[in-house]
Amino acid sequence: MKAVVFDNELKLDNNYENPIPKAGEALIKVKLAGICNTDFEITKGYMGYKGVLGHEFVGVVEEVNSEDKSLVGKRVVAEISYGCHQSDCEWCNKGLVRHCPNRHTIGIWKKDGCFAEYITLPTEVLFEVPENVSDEQVVFVEPLAAACEIVEQLHIQPIQKILVQGDGKLGLTTALALNAYNYDVTLAGRHQNKLDIASSQGVKTILSKDLDIKPVYDVVVEATGSITGVEAAMALTKPRGVLVLKSTVAGSKEINLAPIVINEITVLGSRCGQFKPALRLLENKRIDFKPLISGIYNVDDAIEAFERNKDKDSLKVLLKFD
Amino acid sequence: MKAVVFDNELKLDNNYENPIPKAGEALIKVKLAGICNTDFEITKGYMGYKGVLGHEFVGVVEEVNSEDKSLVGKRVVAEISYGCHQSDCEWCNKGLVRHCPNRHTIGIWKKDGCFAEYITLPTEVLFEVPENVSDEQVVFVEPLAAACEIVEQLHIQPIQKILVQGDGKLGLTTALALNAYNYDVTLAGRHQNKLDIASSQGVKTILSKDLDIKPVYDVVVEATGSITGVEAAMALTKPRGVLVLKSTVAGSKEINLAPIVINEITVLGSRCGQFKPALRLLENKRIDFKPLISGIYNVDDAIEAFERNKDKDSLKVLLKFD
Repeated sequence: MKAVVFDNELKLDNNYENPIPKAGEALIKVKLAGICNTDFEITKGYMGYKGVLGHEFVGVVEEVNSEDKSLVGKRVVAEISYGCHQSDCEWCNKGLVRHCPNRHTIGIWKKDGCFAEYITLPTEVLFEVPENVSDEQVVFVEPLAAACEIVEQLHIQPIQKILVQGDGKLGLTTALALNAYNYDVTLAGRHQNKLDIASSQGVKTILSKDLDIKPVYDVVVEATGSITGVEAAMALTKPRGVLVLKSTVAGSKEINLAPIVINEITVLGSRCGQFKPALRLLENKRIDFKPLISGIYNVDDAIEAFERNKDKDSLKVLLKFD
Repeated sequence: MKAVVFDNELKLDNNYENPIPKAGEALIKVKLAGICNTDFEITKGYMGYKGVLGHEFVGVVEEVNSEDKSLVGKRVVAEISYGCHQSDCEWCNKGLVRHCPNRHTIGIWKKDGCFAEYITLPTEVLFEVPENVSDEQVVFVEPLAAACEIVEQLHIQPIQKILVQGDGKLGLTTALALNAYNYDVTLAGRHQNKLDIASSQGVKTILSKDLDIKPVYDVVVEATGSITGVEAAMALTKPRGVLVLKSTVAGSKEINLAPIVINEITVLGSRCGQFKPALRLLENKRIDFKPLISGIYNVDDAIEAFERNKDKDSLKVLLKFD
């Protein structure tokens, strides 16, 4: 099958071996997939991962290796991690398989990803897509679930003020999600055209250069991915407020952590989320992701799609497999 | 009066002007005071503070500038910050005067400290010392309150495992306080003699070099004051666990914040605390601070005392004023 593989270099493999579903797994024909910045980071060495890339997709179940065949023919999306489910695993037992130390994460850790014509996955991580949600919308369910993770981790009071920093796809998705939850959310970024996507759906927006750097936000979500962004976020968070770290910021320069102590700020690391609430948002048309699509490429043009993803003006680049 | 002053350099001033209590303030004769690492940091430029140093002390009220004279003659300690108490101050209204943007903090911000024969303070921040608590014990109430602040900010489950990193006075005080709250606490440090102080009072201890760097602690308290310590703390905190930042760590080198996101760690900045619970611990003899005293110096030898405080083997150095 065709597969987009990273193995020291990014390449399109036209003869990658088809996966075979193990007991309890489904074989899924991928329809549409989304390129995430994590995919790009992996091509620079992140996580030391080698194999088929990709973790955002929608597909159709072709086969299930178990007695229950009810998913065959269904359009599905999939949570990206599955746990070991050993009886002594505290994480799997708590339903937090995404923190299981022996987890597999598609396209990131110990498991081939979805930038291929086929992928196999345990049926437990599959979710049927509501009929009224198009492929182009539901392909955003994974980053949307990651945005909803903030609401799982943190009880934000309806009266509190939230600032999302960064108008890339991560910041935009987070701002749109928190806005869908009826929070008082402002998105700050450097690109008027990207801010406009959020404001057209009801999010307050401000150009970063116009932002008054004062500690007035109860919750600040850092989605710029830079240490400079983290520093600004610390200065914008109220004493005893919460700074949500959404992007995996590597150390590009020294950072003074003293403001965290002096203002007793809580820094909350936030990663992947559960699909159910994200699917509800999509089913109820709370967010329109179409304006975030910067291009749809056939898998044969995957390398070109990755190049497009690197463009500064680019948001979500999709890969088509049929 | 005699006062230990920082004004570009550290000096003993024998003729510093006596303070005069304003309305609602008490005049306190200082008996015993403790040198904190923050005092030392201020002499290196921290906070840009100039004036009388010191914020840990016990003294006796000599005069009160208000109708209620009940505190006169009483032995007292004092919370170190007082707020503006303006009717529109959200922090003062919430009882969080230590985060009031217009606060005064003795010896640190906009208010002379306690390394002097006299200090004035609003009566609202004074606490009478229980009779059965000696000066040498109660002079630790401020750092002990800062340790108790963790329990105010964070609900730690009794079954959870806590690691305190750093066997300086901050780490020792924190480990002793959490142990007094009956938590499962381990203190890690580099100095067997300092660890012994904690273990003799029931704290589990381990030499840092023997510590297995695995994410097995629900709560890790960072009290080494170094970026290397923060990095180790991230690696020791369980996924979804809490890393409490107790020391104001300035950036000495780059730091990779990605583990916070990947493991969804909560980093909790924690600073000063309330005195009531700390005084209860002292009154009930839950902790003995005597082994932490590295020296008691007369105010006339204050410069020498600051030198002693710098010694690596030193813990708490006290200044006597009578």
